[in-house]
Amino acid sequence: MIIGAIEAGGTKFVCGIGNEHGEIFEKISIPTRTPKETMKDVFQFFEGKQIERMGVGSFGPIQVSQDQPDYGTILETPKTDWKYFPLLDEIKKNFSDDMLIAVDTDVNAAAFAEMKWGAAKGMNSCVYFTVGTGIGAGAVVRGKLVHGLLHPEAGHMFVKRHPDDDFKGSCPYHGDCLEGLASGTSMRERWGKAGVDIQDKAAWDLEAYYLAQTAINALLTYSPEKIIFGGGVLNHPGLIDKVREQFSKLLNGYIKKDEVIEDVDDYIVLPGLGSEAGLKGSLALVL
Amino acid sequence: MIIGAIEAGGTKFVCGIGNEHGEIFEKISIPTRTPKETMKDVFQFFEGKQIERMGVGSFGPIQVSQDQPDYGTILETPKTDWKYFPLLDEIKKNFSDDMLIAVDTDVNAAAFAEMKWGAAKGMNSCVYFTVGTGIGAGAVVRGKLVHGLLHPEAGHMFVKRHPDDDFKGSCPYHGDCLEGLASGTSMRERWGKAGVDIQDKAAWDLEAYYLAQTAINALLTYSPEKIIFGGGVLNHPGLIDKVREQFSKLLNGYIKKDEVIEDVDDYIVLPGLGSEAGLKGSLALVL
Repeated sequence: MIIGAIEAGGTKFVCGIGNEHGEIFEKISIPTRTPKETMKDVFQFFEGKQIERMGVGSFGPIQVSQDQPDYGTILETPKTDWKYFPLLDEIKKNFSDDMLIAVDTDVNAAAFAEMKWGAAKGMNSCVYFTVGTGIGAGAVVRGKLVHGLLHPEAGHMFVKRHPDDDFKGSCPYHGDCLEGLASGTSMRERWGKAGVDIQDKAAWDLEAYYLAQTAINALLTYSPEKIIFGGGVLNHPGLIDKVREQFSKLLNGYIKKDEVIEDVDDYIVLPGLGSEAGLKGSLALVL
Repeated sequence: MIIGAIEAGGTKFVCGIGNEHGEIFEKISIPTRTPKETMKDVFQFFEGKQIERMGVGSFGPIQVSQDQPDYGTILETPKTDWKYFPLLDEIKKNFSDDMLIAVDTDVNAAAFAEMKWGAAKGMNSCVYFTVGTGIGAGAVVRGKLVHGLLHPEAGHMFVKRHPDDDFKGSCPYHGDCLEGLASGTSMRERWGKAGVDIQDKAAWDLEAYYLAQTAINALLTYSPEKIIFGGGVLNHPGLIDKVREQFSKLLNGYIKKDEVIEDVDDYIVLPGLGSEAGLKGSLALVL
C-alpha cells in the first residue's frame, strides 16, 4: 500500500511517501508559510504519487475527535495564519472523496509510531515527550491515542520546583509550569545561552530533576508501559541517565513493579525511531 | 439481571445486590479483617442471592489487566494480610466457573459509574479523584478505564508548592507530593486538627490551590470531558468553588475550550452518585 504522510510543524511541513511497514521511500521538507503557500507545495509533492491513504500529524491545538464537525481543524494557535484552518478539509478537497485520511497531533502520532515500530513495540501503551523549544506530549492508553476534551498538553503540567531554583519560569501562560522550567526556551532564559552550549553539571542535574518528575507524573496518570523522551534537549549526552536516576530517587519505590524499580533503563528511553517518529507516526495513523 | 457488587476497602467491604441500571436493592458493610474472616462474611451475604455477574472495585495496588496471569490479585500493599491475596480467584472459587467477574480499582470503578450514570453521563472520558485520608484517582479515556503498567496512582503526582507553604508534606514515600500536601492526613498534620474542625480560610485556600493543580494536571494529561472530586475533604462547604476559581487562575486560559473557560462550574464537579459511586462502579464493571 502506498501511504502519504504529512508532519505539519510550525517551521516546516515534512511530507513523505511510505508503506504499511513504516518504511519511508521519499520525503521533502517545506517551509511553513501561510496555509495557501504551504499547502500548494504540499499538494505538488503528492501529485501523481498514487497514494491510497494519508496520515497527518500536526502541531496543535487541533480537533482530533473524528465525531466532531470540526475534526482536523487547527484551533486557537499563536500562529495566526493557521488559526481555525480546516487542515483535513483542505487535504480532502485535493484527493478523492473516499480516500482514508486521519489527523492527530504530531506528538500523538509519534507516540503511536513508537508503539507500532519503535521503543514501545508490542505494547499497548506509551507516553512520548518531546523536549525542544517547548514540551509536547503524546500518549497511547490501551492501544488508543488519548483524545477527550482535546488531546494531551502535558508539557504544561505543574511540577515541584527544586528548592535551589529561583528562576521565575518562561511560560507566557503559567510561568513555572513544566515547559516554563524545563523547555529549551527556559534553559536559554535561565542560563543565558542555548542548551547545546551549556556544560555546567548543575544545569543538567536541574533539567533532569524536572524531566524525572515529568516521567513520574506520566507514570502515575497514564500508567504507560514505556516512557519515551525525544527532542533536541535530549541530545545532551547522559541526560537520559540523569533522568532515570532522579526518577528512581523521587519515585522512591512507590510503584512496586520491576519495570520501574529494576529495569528503569528500559522503561525511560530515547525514541526508537529517532527523528522519523513524527513522519512515521503520521503514516501509522491510517493503519 | 441480578448483579453482585463488592467495594473492597481497607476498613470495610461494602457488598451489594443491584441491576444493570445501577440500582442497588440491598447492601451490607463488613469490617475488613484478615482475608479469611472478611471473605467468609462476604460470601455469606451473597449466598442464595442468585447473582448472575459480579463486579469488584478494590483498594490497590491490584492487577487490573485481564490478560495477566495474576489478574485480580492484590499487589504490594501496606495492609500486610492482603499482600498478594488472589481476590478474584477466591471469589471465583465460591461461584460457578462460568460466571462473569471483573475486578478493578475502587476509584477506577467510581470513575466508570460516574460516566455511566453520574456526573459524566453520556461522555467518553472522565477523571475521578477521591480526597480523604489519602488521594485516589480513577480515569476513563475513550470509554475505557485506564490500565497499563498498573492503574492510575495520580494521588501521588508532583505539583508546585505554594510560595508561602513550608509544610514538609505527609507522604511517607514522597514527602510533598499531592497526597503529602493535600490529603486529609496532610491537613491534620499541617494544622494539628482534622479537616472537619478547620475553619481558617487560609487553610482551605491552600487546599484549593493544590486541588486546582490536580485538576489542571488531569486536564493536561488525560484531557477528560469531566473532572470529579469526591471524598471526605470535599464535604467542606465551598471548597469545590475555590478549586474552580484557582483552576481558572492557574490555567490562565491556556486550553481554549468553552468547557474549561466559560463553563468551569460544569467541568469540575462533585460526584453525581454521592457515596454510592464505588458500589455502583463495581456493578458497572460487568456491564
